[in-house]
Amino acid sequence: MKESFKTSNHTNPNLLAGAIAGAMRESDSVEIQAIGAGAVNQALKAVAIARGFLAPTGQDLTCSPAFAHADINGTERTSMRILVHRHDY
Amino acid sequence: MKESFKTSNHTNPNLLAGAIAGAMRESDSVEIQAIGAGAVNQALKAVAIARGFLAPTGQDLTCSPAFAHADINGTERTSMRILVHRHDY
Repeated sequence: MKESFKTSNHTNPNLLAGAIAGAMRESDSVEIQAIGAGAVNQALKAVAIARGFLAPTGQDLTCSPAFAHADINGTERTSMRILVHRHDY
Repeated sequence: MKESFKTSNHTNPNLLAGAIAGAMRESDSVEIQAIGAGAVNQALKAVAIARGFLAPTGQDLTCSPAFAHADINGTERTSMRILVHRHDY
């Protein structure tokens, strides 16, 4: 099953990067859901850091961003859904 | 030559998406430089929209985020450098 992470603007990018790299041992993709600019920024920082974690094992990550809808306390908000793929290179 | 776009939190994602899709006719990758959370968010929205523009031609985009340094009025700031790749599928 694909792991899914939710980010906020308080997300620690280093911790999320570790979680992404860890999940990539079990799977070749994970999903990040981010609502708001701060959350998207932390998500992308985490992917940049996780690329560094995986590089020594000959692996790299790419992202496919898409729009999604999230229900926050009964209000519909547009979120970004970032699919992160693992590649061997 | 690879085209490079700079984003801010005022960037119109639809216009940038059109510019990305247009540049992909000449090249298989472009670079987006974003400083700050708002700029990163607009950049990622633009890529999500541009994926929709390219889908009917059987092409898709992925992003490789990395950290970079930018000199803003003599002050060094950390920016995100998002490499956008075009793929046939």
